[in-house]
Amino acid sequence: MAKQKKYVYFFGGKRADGKAEMKALLGGKGANLAEMVNISLPVPAGFTITTEVCTYFYSNKKRYPKELKSQVLTALKKVEKEMGAKFGDPENPLLLSVRSGARASMPGMMDTVLNLGLNDETIQSLIKKTNNPRFAYDSYRRFVQMYGDVVLGLKPESKHDEDPFEVILENKKHKHGFKVDTELTADHLKELVEEFKVAIKEKTGHEFPTNPMDQLWGAIGAVFGSWDNDRAKVYRKLNNIPAEWGTAVNIQSMVFGNMGEDCGTGVAFTRDAATGENVFYGEYLFNAQGEDVVAGTRTPHPIEELKKDDPKIYRELDGYRKTLEKHYKEMMDIEFTIQQGKLWMLQCRVGKRTGFAAIKMAVDMVKEKLITKEDAISRIDPNQLNQLLRPIFDQNEKNRSISEGKLVAKGLNAGPGAASGKIALSAQDAEEMAAKGDPVILVRIETSPEDIKGMNASEGILTARGGMTSHAALVARQMGKVCVAGCGDLKINYKEKTVAVEGKSHVLNEGDFISIDGTTGEVIKGKLETKPSEVIQVLISKSLNSKESDVYKTYSSLLKWADQIRKMNVRTNADQPDQASNAIAFGAEGIGLCRTEHMFFGGERIRSVRKMIVSDTVEDRKAALSELLPLQREDFEGIFKAMDGRPVTIRTLDPPLHEFLPHTEKEIAELAQQLGVAEKKLKDKIESLSEFNPMLGFRGCRLGVVYPEITEMQARAIIEAAVNIAKKGTKVKPEIMIPLVSTVQEFSLQEDIVRKAAKEVMEEKGKKINYLVGTMIELPRAALTADEIAQRAEFFSFGTNDLTQTTFGLSRDDAGKFLPLYVQHDILPADPFETLDQSGVGELVEMGTQKGRSVSKDLKVGICGEHGGDPASVEFCHRTGLDYVSCSPFRVPIARLAAARAVINEKGMKKVSSKRSKKKSSKKKKR
Amino acid sequence: MAKQKKYVYFFGGKRADGKAEMKALLGGKGANLAEMVNISLPVPAGFTITTEVCTYFYSNKKRYPKELKSQVLTALKKVEKEMGAKFGDPENPLLLSVRSGARASMPGMMDTVLNLGLNDETIQSLIKKTNNPRFAYDSYRRFVQMYGDVVLGLKPESKHDEDPFEVILENKKHKHGFKVDTELTADHLKELVEEFKVAIKEKTGHEFPTNPMDQLWGAIGAVFGSWDNDRAKVYRKLNNIPAEWGTAVNIQSMVFGNMGEDCGTGVAFTRDAATGENVFYGEYLFNAQGEDVVAGTRTPHPIEELKKDDPKIYRELDGYRKTLEKHYKEMMDIEFTIQQGKLWMLQCRVGKRTGFAAIKMAVDMVKEKLITKEDAISRIDPNQLNQLLRPIFDQNEKNRSISEGKLVAKGLNAGPGAASGKIALSAQDAEEMAAKGDPVILVRIETSPEDIKGMNASEGILTARGGMTSHAALVARQMGKVCVAGCGDLKINYKEKTVAVEGKSHVLNEGDFISIDGTTGEVIKGKLETKPSEVIQVLISKSLNSKESDVYKTYSSLLKWADQIRKMNVRTNADQPDQASNAIAFGAEGIGLCRTEHMFFGGERIRSVRKMIVSDTVEDRKAALSELLPLQREDFEGIFKAMDGRPVTIRTLDPPLHEFLPHTEKEIAELAQQLGVAEKKLKDKIESLSEFNPMLGFRGCRLGVVYPEITEMQARAIIEAAVNIAKKGTKVKPEIMIPLVSTVQEFSLQEDIVRKAAKEVMEEKGKKINYLVGTMIELPRAALTADEIAQRAEFFSFGTNDLTQTTFGLSRDDAGKFLPLYVQHDILPADPFETLDQSGVGELVEMGTQKGRSVSKDLKVGICGEHGGDPASVEFCHRTGLDYVSCSPFRVPIARLAAARAVINEKGMKKVSSKRSKKKSSKKKKR
Repeated sequence: MAKQKKYVYFFGGKRADGKAEMKALLGGKGANLAEMVNISLPVPAGFTITTEVCTYFYSNKKRYPKELKSQVLTALKKVEKEMGAKFGDPENPLLLSVRSGARASMPGMMDTVLNLGLNDETIQSLIKKTNNPRFAYDSYRRFVQMYGDVVLGLKPESKHDEDPFEVILENKKHKHGFKVDTELTADHLKELVEEFKVAIKEKTGHEFPTNPMDQLWGAIGAVFGSWDNDRAKVYRKLNNIPAEWGTAVNIQSMVFGNMGEDCGTGVAFTRDAATGENVFYGEYLFNAQGEDVVAGTRTPHPIEELKKDDPKIYRELDGYRKTLEKHYKEMMDIEFTIQQGKLWMLQCRVGKRTGFAAIKMAVDMVKEKLITKEDAISRIDPNQLNQLLRPIFDQNEKNRSISEGKLVAKGLNAGPGAASGKIALSAQDAEEMAAKGDPVILVRIETSPEDIKGMNASEGILTARGGMTSHAALVARQMGKVCVAGCGDLKINYKEKTVAVEGKSHVLNEGDFISIDGTTGEVIKGKLETKPSEVIQVLISKSLNSKESDVYKTYSSLLKWADQIRKMNVRTNADQPDQASNAIAFGAEGIGLCRTEHMFFGGERIRSVRKMIVSDTVEDRKAALSELLPLQREDFEGIFKAMDGRPVTIRTLDPPLHEFLPHTEKEIAELAQQLGVAEKKLKDKIESLSEFNPMLGFRGCRLGVVYPEITEMQARAIIEAAVNIAKKGTKVKPEIMIPLVSTVQEFSLQEDIVRKAAKEVMEEKGKKINYLVGTMIELPRAALTADEIAQRAEFFSFGTNDLTQTTFGLSRDDAGKFLPLYVQHDILPADPFETLDQSGVGELVEMGTQKGRSVSKDLKVGICGEHGGDPASVEFCHRTGLDYVSCSPFRVPIARLAAARAVINEKGMKKVSSKRSKKKSSKKKKR
Repeated sequence: MAKQKKYVYFFGGKRADGKAEMKALLGGKGANLAEMVNISLPVPAGFTITTEVCTYFYSNKKRYPKELKSQVLTALKKVEKEMGAKFGDPENPLLLSVRSGARASMPGMMDTVLNLGLNDETIQSLIKKTNNPRFAYDSYRRFVQMYGDVVLGLKPESKHDEDPFEVILENKKHKHGFKVDTELTADHLKELVEEFKVAIKEKTGHEFPTNPMDQLWGAIGAVFGSWDNDRAKVYRKLNNIPAEWGTAVNIQSMVFGNMGEDCGTGVAFTRDAATGENVFYGEYLFNAQGEDVVAGTRTPHPIEELKKDDPKIYRELDGYRKTLEKHYKEMMDIEFTIQQGKLWMLQCRVGKRTGFAAIKMAVDMVKEKLITKEDAISRIDPNQLNQLLRPIFDQNEKNRSISEGKLVAKGLNAGPGAASGKIALSAQDAEEMAAKGDPVILVRIETSPEDIKGMNASEGILTARGGMTSHAALVARQMGKVCVAGCGDLKINYKEKTVAVEGKSHVLNEGDFISIDGTTGEVIKGKLETKPSEVIQVLISKSLNSKESDVYKTYSSLLKWADQIRKMNVRTNADQPDQASNAIAFGAEGIGLCRTEHMFFGGERIRSVRKMIVSDTVEDRKAALSELLPLQREDFEGIFKAMDGRPVTIRTLDPPLHEFLPHTEKEIAELAQQLGVAEKKLKDKIESLSEFNPMLGFRGCRLGVVYPEITEMQARAIIEAAVNIAKKGTKVKPEIMIPLVSTVQEFSLQEDIVRKAAKEVMEEKGKKINYLVGTMIELPRAALTADEIAQRAEFFSFGTNDLTQTTFGLSRDDAGKFLPLYVQHDILPADPFETLDQSGVGELVEMGTQKGRSVSKDLKVGICGEHGGDPASVEFCHRTGLDYVSCSPFRVPIARLAAARAVINEKGMKKVSSKRSKKKSSKKKKR
């Protein structure tokens, strides 16, 4: 005969059928209960009915496998033996809890029944044993109520309807003039039990089941049934938990923390879940049940007081804490109950924690030799690093402000950190206010390249329109500015200089203080104090005395390990020397994208740029460009100096020319006068440059093809700067990048111009330097014809922002009308501008890389879109074989960590021999 | 010893070393001279120095292969023998011509020397032989002048400088009071020879070479040298002729048509090159040289007069004409000379012809059994069919107008044909003027969907902005309207209702007559008469008495053969029943793209559409949509009826909603009143719908995802119409097409809505019909994930207009600033909106087709971009395995022909057995 399939797993005493690894079969709770038994922790005996029964249940019209009944009875016998009590026995009854337990935690989503096995007979024994009739009837009352709600279906569907039992309970209290449940006596509770039973008979037509075995099967069915309730379904959908997983059911002996003063209950973390410190952290209450600790009706005591209150129990518990950490190599979240002086462990699971604590614990555990560096890295979501890096509001002060009704609105958390300042409604106002020494928050409907200087002068940026990759968000992240974007409730009136709020009476004026939290998207009226994180203090503010800070040491250990493991280089997108310096502090190994156009807005430059644009002849254009040349050269000198020998990828002019021209009548009139051209002519020029779809228009290398003199000037400025800096003894590695290439012919034309200018400069200056000429791959056609382009280009950099726009046919500036809905309805798994779309855009990245390397084996390939700082996208880049990712300065640490995780995930390995990592790191440095 | 490489190919008498197939080696002229010898035509003997010598010459510092000299001497001996004269012999001198002859015709680009071998000795013999001293000295004079110019380099570089020989000649005439050269006597000419020689000595320091062998090598070197002159280089670049091809040099015995009255010369085509008629067509002159026929100093006689003038020669020539056609199976262009009563053939080549003639000849030759149907089809550029289909101006009247200075400007030839009408500057004006019975030309800066009705009311459309695939061009071609687009010189002032012309004093007013030629792009002031082509008269105007016309018979024979051969179906893009009927007349086998939005502008509909757009609630939107439903249903009924069982692909709403809203203050105010909403609210709505990049914005299926009720209404209207028509006994094959899909999820959501609506309608109406739901593949991501999409979609239609825009990152509305330059500078081989970019966009089409069919083997795949009517693109579609192409009605015949050519080119076959073509045609019909 074939061996029976095992559906029931016993645990208790010294042995358990299951173990921690069996989460899929036993659920998280069941597997950990078994594990605790296996490592000799005191666990009330019980058994787990597997998730396979749940699956069977749903595919067989809610029936059970035929073997289940006998297996349950056998396990129940073992429990009775272990606990020295018998289920349903009037003399010495065993009471049980019946709880759900799925593979993934689904807190509060499914049903539980406690105190199962009580009836009018067994209650007597409980009274006798505890000598506590009030406790006994309270337990009975709770059981009947819970069973009525959960198993017999009396729990109201909607929160707005009343639980019939609660109505009876409230009536009882009202009748006696009581305010809280604890005022009810044993007799009152006894009456309630009877009244509850009557209610059940009335509502269901059936008597409340007195047979404990009937009670048990009823409860089991209810728990399995709750897997498919509406709340659970919604939760699963939100958390991507497949319905096929099913839940297990845990049937366990009851222990009581509320039998008297030698009883108690508590929850604890093996380390501090907020700070990550290696201290026992939790709360307990004497003579109480678990829900009392959570409900807040009584104030629980910190766990360290248990040391005084009951040193023996504390020692035992602290011992278990150590055993658990040593065994699980993780910070654990535990529940325990003390019943009449005996400590029972009721649950353990990996504890939730703040990002900050996650990092601290992981690093500490490596130092304690509990885990490896790789373990530490794979435990941290790279985005959690933000919590170490960003300036922050004082949480208490913020909460106080919000409770005072000062929360104005919520937008997208586009640039993490916290900032307070005076509202400025134009870039110019922002600059002027900042010049006076005021902190400024620039508030705009949206921003454009013209606002760069004002953005730079501000502490933070708040916009009413635009998404996570809008101009404001992109620039803010690169500058390291706080940014809340797309705050649609704001009604900004530039003329009256006011900001009204949709549906609220708030009207803010320019100059009013406002505070924005770019980590949460909150916009708060008034001024909140901010402080830089400790890590930032060391890295950027160079306050070296903080270098010894624990936070900084934690950060730097983790990042050091990540650097040892990762294979990809991490560069930064930076346009200015100070950004470059910051990025180096964050660990950037080069610049992956230096946008020359941002330089075009500084100081006098914009005038020369505009002069160039309105020129009618090549000669006039060249004259204007020659004014720009020394300014651009200076910029590049600053960057090369700051980067000190690291590679610097500089993109030639990219945006459409109309972005540099003014748009209001007044500005146009001013400019016309400034340039000495007729206003009409200037207007015609602006009109002629306007475009239906600027994203797909006259921009990128198309500018350099039509006006080769622009590319020539930029190449000259770059090479002159490089040669000047090289002459001073600093190494330079310029990489000139041609944007928006769609055919190799475009690239070749531009490359020829660059090489000719470079040759001339080096001859003039009598010094040779090495430089590369490569291209952005940011149009589908470039990826599709990468084998042609790689015959000329020396490197590729995937511009995944534009590549995403063109591959999807999706303008990120216009996607706000439908993209949120798309993500919400799972039409897209994520915003493709935040996380690289691997099956579409990613396919082009792979194709481009393969085709490029098919003709140029060692082609250097990187990515410089915003995705370079997104952990999932970084992992994709690693798998695709990219040489580097480039992201905004503040995301560099995140990318470093993500790149290391990519290696760990790929290998599925736990240990990287030091030899191998050395080899990799030497390979890495060469690129 | 290795065999000597053959550099020199003799021809003459009864045999030639070369033949017609050796064009690459001997050049076109040399190969055909050899071929004429081979088929026993009388050709003055000579020899050809191969193109390999030219290549050697340029890669070896202008030296010749050492074998050349002896090979030339050997060949020269044979020539002397054949012609019975000796080169340089004072008694019986052989005179030679030295001419270039490249693989491809390069008319007038390279040099020629005639009468070579003359000197003071040999001239005497010539005088004696001809008894015509004036002829002899004229020949000598011409030789010295030509040799001086070409070989000795006295020809001025620039046209503005004077030829020194012409100066001497003019002085001579002036001195004697002569007006024309023919007044000069033999003595005058003799003096000129001497004066020319003196001039040569003065200018070069060298004597004119008297040794004929020196003359010969000088001339050979000059002809090879002329391969690289500036004119030749420019011509090669323009015509894509590689420099490596090189030229051959043809050295041939001179024959003279100007020795006396028994001499003559002529050029002829074996059929009429203008009409294609099978008649001898050409001109001749007695006692003349070739240049006299061309130069126009004497009026040549039509060839048929030769029949009277010299019946013997005519018979002989007419025999050669027949021999040549029979041999070459082509219409040939010939040159001949009669010297002292003997006919010599000097040149033959395939003759140039009008498109019309090409078609007529090809069809006639099939009927004459000279060539196969496949040959006929492969000889005709499908675009030439246009010449049979378009209304035309009377050429004489047009030329007269142009010569009177009435040519206003030139734009893009965006919609072929000719139209005259009164200028209307708005769609509304156009409608009003047309309603009065006036012919109208709609003149706009650019057009938008709002102008559809006005465009429909006009004879032709003229725009100042936009390219070959601008809105105006696309819609015009689909409507079969004449269109000249992107005529940048026009300055249109809507307010003053005038059209000024850049750089000209023309100012046209609304109501003035204007004529546009959409085949040439010409815009002409005033009214020119037009007439429909005969084919159109039969096909569209149903004037059945023209059915017997020769032109129509030619057209229908050709297209019948094409239909037998082609494998792909040809459908049309049509939005209205009348377009559909026209398309069927042109041979469309279905509708590949019916744009529902064009229907949105008709009559009252636009109001309901606008009401729908400004709705705040689903209920309001549904109410507005329910007004549209019966109107759309009616439209579809008309189309299904017109298509009579052929498949009809209907695309759900595609354009961004703002295209349907008004933009001027006045219109907005009117609409607000009409809809009963506040003007401010309407303005806000319009503002909220405005987009930075509408092409990449809220359009296509994104509309249907956000507003499912729109898709539902459209699906209902389609299925209701289909069921209604089916009930009347007409077959229907609706194919509902979801636009702008980027993920299978979008498609599935839309498909579910369509299927649900269809099921409901069919249940309500109690009748089932078959229908398909498929998608446009018009975004790179759709092509990249076609395997996912094909799991749901029942057909694919490549929207290559948008696919080109997104793949290139190129907005066709904005590309005007650089795209022309790109094509001009060979950065792109052609405008990718006219001819499908095979290496980029085509790669996505291939990938999408393969991926789609990898999961759905019989997936129906078509193309409905403008490329569906472009012959090269149609050929690509055939190779890629598409089931059909769809194009504007007037291009359907072109696509049918191109699809047949694709089969012929693919197979490289000359005969398709009737059995196979039947099989194919039956397979074709199934789709």
